[in-house]
Amino acid sequence: MEFSSKLLERAVNEMSQLPGIGKRTALRLVLHMLRQPKEQTIALSEALQAMRKDVKFCKSCHNISDVELCEICSNPNRKEHIICVVEDVRDVMAIENTSSFKGLYHVLGGKISPMDGIGPHDLNIETLVAKVKQGTIKELIFALSSTMEGDTTNFYIFKQIQDYKVFTSTIARGISVGDELEYADEITLGRSIVNRIPFETSMKL
Amino acid sequence: MEFSSKLLERAVNEMSQLPGIGKRTALRLVLHMLRQPKEQTIALSEALQAMRKDVKFCKSCHNISDVELCEICSNPNRKEHIICVVEDVRDVMAIENTSSFKGLYHVLGGKISPMDGIGPHDLNIETLVAKVKQGTIKELIFALSSTMEGDTTNFYIFKQIQDYKVFTSTIARGISVGDELEYADEITLGRSIVNRIPFETSMKL
Repeated sequence: MEFSSKLLERAVNEMSQLPGIGKRTALRLVLHMLRQPKEQTIALSEALQAMRKDVKFCKSCHNISDVELCEICSNPNRKEHIICVVEDVRDVMAIENTSSFKGLYHVLGGKISPMDGIGPHDLNIETLVAKVKQGTIKELIFALSSTMEGDTTNFYIFKQIQDYKVFTSTIARGISVGDELEYADEITLGRSIVNRIPFETSMKL
Repeated sequence: MEFSSKLLERAVNEMSQLPGIGKRTALRLVLHMLRQPKEQTIALSEALQAMRKDVKFCKSCHNISDVELCEICSNPNRKEHIICVVEDVRDVMAIENTSSFKGLYHVLGGKISPMDGIGPHDLNIETLVAKVKQGTIKELIFALSSTMEGDTTNFYIFKQIQDYKVFTSTIARGISVGDELEYADEITLGRSIVNRIPFETSMKL
């Protein structure tokens, strides 16, 4: 791609560093910015800089936060003895949206994935184990993706904490609400039968 | 979507102003930036700001340029009397990539589209007509999209300049190179038969 302007070329090159954005998409976005008021691009770039420079991670749960201890960890109404272990910030937001969990979180920052060069020490596992060792946590809920990497990570953490008195659970795997049974995969369907729940319990949800 | 950080929320909101980028994609991109070195985000935002603040448009052809008169317009080896009329900067880049055109360009900045509220006066049509009136231009090549809006724009410009001695042409419509004939639409196929060219000419291309 030949550019008529170095400034344009630089902007497109930087933009196309982002995942899922190729040179053509980057060019389309950058040309869109040129058609919009100048203030809009400046607001975007300032927001990105401010975020990257000043954003903090909660010292307890590693969630993104503007303060040292995030809103969830510092909320006295949340149950401190239940911790939900998630991969990243998006999962916290997704679970918070359901309003079904009133405990605290622990954000690992990824999952163990040797193929991508991510080992246990690249994740926030040690601080989680340290929390468990203190003895105040009663339950650990594993809410990782239902993939090989997610299962490996669950198992690794489980091994680290199994000698301590903490109940570990994992979120239920089953048929999604609204799904047709005939299109469900065998493993999911099999698990949902094995882990069936009393009908009266399901009516209360 | 509930955010745990105002800085994050602001960055996601600004990012999702871009076309084709929703809140979820914006969040994915912003979280990716947080995992990358700080310098990368700063480089991106500085590149965007510099581009938006300092980029110029060539005073002759309206192409994006770092100087007053763009590289193409100021190149003495280009044929000044042939002008290729295009919608936007991307079209200039696309045609330049083919190395098949040695004249100059005129970037309209869009096409007439009443549905989107874009009339002739929102485009760089007056400067084009003024160039034609000067009498030095021999040929005008319309290279707009083959859509209703493109055809309307071509016709509008044609009406403005038809009293002046300038030859107007439009880029050939036909079967794309590499295309199977059976999948071509009727209008394209019909046009490609009516506007057939001598086989000997086609061999030279």
